[in-house]
Amino acid sequence: MLSLLDEIKEDLIIVNMELEKVVESPQVLLAETSRHLLQAGGKRLRPAFALLAAKMFRYDLQKLLPLAMALELIHMATLLHDDVVDAADKRRGRPTVRSIWGNKVSTHTGDFLFAKALTLVAEYENPMIAQVLAQTCVSMSEGELIQMSGKYKPDLRNYLRRIRCKTALLIAASCKLGAVATGAPPSIYLPLWRYGYFLGMAFQITDDVLDIVADERKLGKPVGGDLREGVITLPVILALRESPHARYLEEIIQKRTKSDRDIAEAINIVRNCGATEKSLDIADRYIRNAIRELQSLPDIPTKNTLQYIAEFIKVRSF
Amino acid sequence: MLSLLDEIKEDLIIVNMELEKVVESPQVLLAETSRHLLQAGGKRLRPAFALLAAKMFRYDLQKLLPLAMALELIHMATLLHDDVVDAADKRRGRPTVRSIWGNKVSTHTGDFLFAKALTLVAEYENPMIAQVLAQTCVSMSEGELIQMSGKYKPDLRNYLRRIRCKTALLIAASCKLGAVATGAPPSIYLPLWRYGYFLGMAFQITDDVLDIVADERKLGKPVGGDLREGVITLPVILALRESPHARYLEEIIQKRTKSDRDIAEAINIVRNCGATEKSLDIADRYIRNAIRELQSLPDIPTKNTLQYIAEFIKVRSF
Repeated sequence: MLSLLDEIKEDLIIVNMELEKVVESPQVLLAETSRHLLQAGGKRLRPAFALLAAKMFRYDLQKLLPLAMALELIHMATLLHDDVVDAADKRRGRPTVRSIWGNKVSTHTGDFLFAKALTLVAEYENPMIAQVLAQTCVSMSEGELIQMSGKYKPDLRNYLRRIRCKTALLIAASCKLGAVATGAPPSIYLPLWRYGYFLGMAFQITDDVLDIVADERKLGKPVGGDLREGVITLPVILALRESPHARYLEEIIQKRTKSDRDIAEAINIVRNCGATEKSLDIADRYIRNAIRELQSLPDIPTKNTLQYIAEFIKVRSF
Repeated sequence: MLSLLDEIKEDLIIVNMELEKVVESPQVLLAETSRHLLQAGGKRLRPAFALLAAKMFRYDLQKLLPLAMALELIHMATLLHDDVVDAADKRRGRPTVRSIWGNKVSTHTGDFLFAKALTLVAEYENPMIAQVLAQTCVSMSEGELIQMSGKYKPDLRNYLRRIRCKTALLIAASCKLGAVATGAPPSIYLPLWRYGYFLGMAFQITDDVLDIVADERKLGKPVGGDLREGVITLPVILALRESPHARYLEEIIQKRTKSDRDIAEAINIVRNCGATEKSLDIADRYIRNAIRELQSLPDIPTKNTLQYIAEFIKVRSF
């Protein structure tokens, strides 16, 4: 993935350094938890998309920095709140803020980072940036509730709406706003929004497949996590339609507490009926849609980068 | 209090109606929890200050509505997150969202309302409104951490910084931005900011006194709640300096679990040494500072209203 980002590598390092500065606070604990989160790594996918999208018009790092930082801070804030409500102890193989400092600190640090993000985008003259980001955050919290209301229910519509709200819209906003921040017209930022949207859908589907098939050490958390929580993802929905053991799978899903053996058996059923391959086929359709959106954009090297990133989504293993 | 707000009473009703509309969501649960919160009442103090402040320049309800709603939504969002981290079951005498729907729903509804607030203020042409609000939210989460770091410690500096961040800054922002939203110059909005700031400090101090001396039914929650949580407020800090039973009070404060009897005894010690009266004296000094800030503002009836509100702060019993 990293080599795909060669053309913005140095600027991403600057984004990272600025992120470390912006989370400074007279409250030592806030600064410490924010730094912990920053240093836990992560792909900085959303800032990267904003920078790449800006290449399609008049790239200017100074204009992009507040946006790029805000996108990552919003993403971090949602992770902090997710960890609290999911009582998660590990993320990306490292202990979560809540597992070290507790739920209170994690909740308030999330609010802090979210508010910080909004101070950054409030600087832009074009109000569209703050508007789109705030609306995306509204949708993201709606996505959380869609997920809760869909628990234990294998419902494709609920699944697609949820991953749209929880993942695709922020990636779409990253692509769109990177262009908007440099003054690009709709003919540039609308295809970029759609590229980001399709890519985000594909990204979440492959993420959900990885939760079933991944190597636990590479994933940095136990596999089958969604299943354990009653969160029904695409591979499971498809397995319930296609597997000869669908009824047994359904029984496991409905259990409110699942043993490790339950999870292992459910994963085997999903793996052995072609549901993960079929899910990746669906991800592939989104990827092809994403790539098609690039056609109308200027023929610059970044266009190839965006295409490679889309193609990389489905072959990644972490 | 209500009769003090006569001149904006009808407009506050419109703010309320618009608030009920703005929290509508395709996610039924989000709409339901938000409505529960709106209908739980509350004084709508922050919208009221924004409207009153606007009277000092060119009052225009249409220009004020998004701001007034955003202020209340931000306040509600912080209550939802506070209830989660404090595991509170009651607020204003009614069950909290978390006690009915659980912590997850309460956390995500808080995020939802906060993001909604920011979509509203992103509409303003003047970026100062979104900037000040976002910065105020940063300070409010810092205030939460200041409170956590000051637990069990009777530290006056920590107390004053905390109530500034947690309460005074949002009331100050309400007063300032009500004027800013109608295009007022600094000579109008700066004294209003200071008025709101001093008033907010006084408001929180009297709130903290009420937590010690109030009638439980009027308060809508058990008295001594802060003490139970290890949150040391001004009356307790003063009692530790002045009471002949200071050492015993200190012992109770340091207990990590306190019995009802511990709380009752601590409250008696604080009540019987003049610490609550002395706290109200300090609140009174802030109130007089607030009133002094009104001097430079236009001599319109609203000026009297703002003065009455300031004077009301210290005689209220709920």
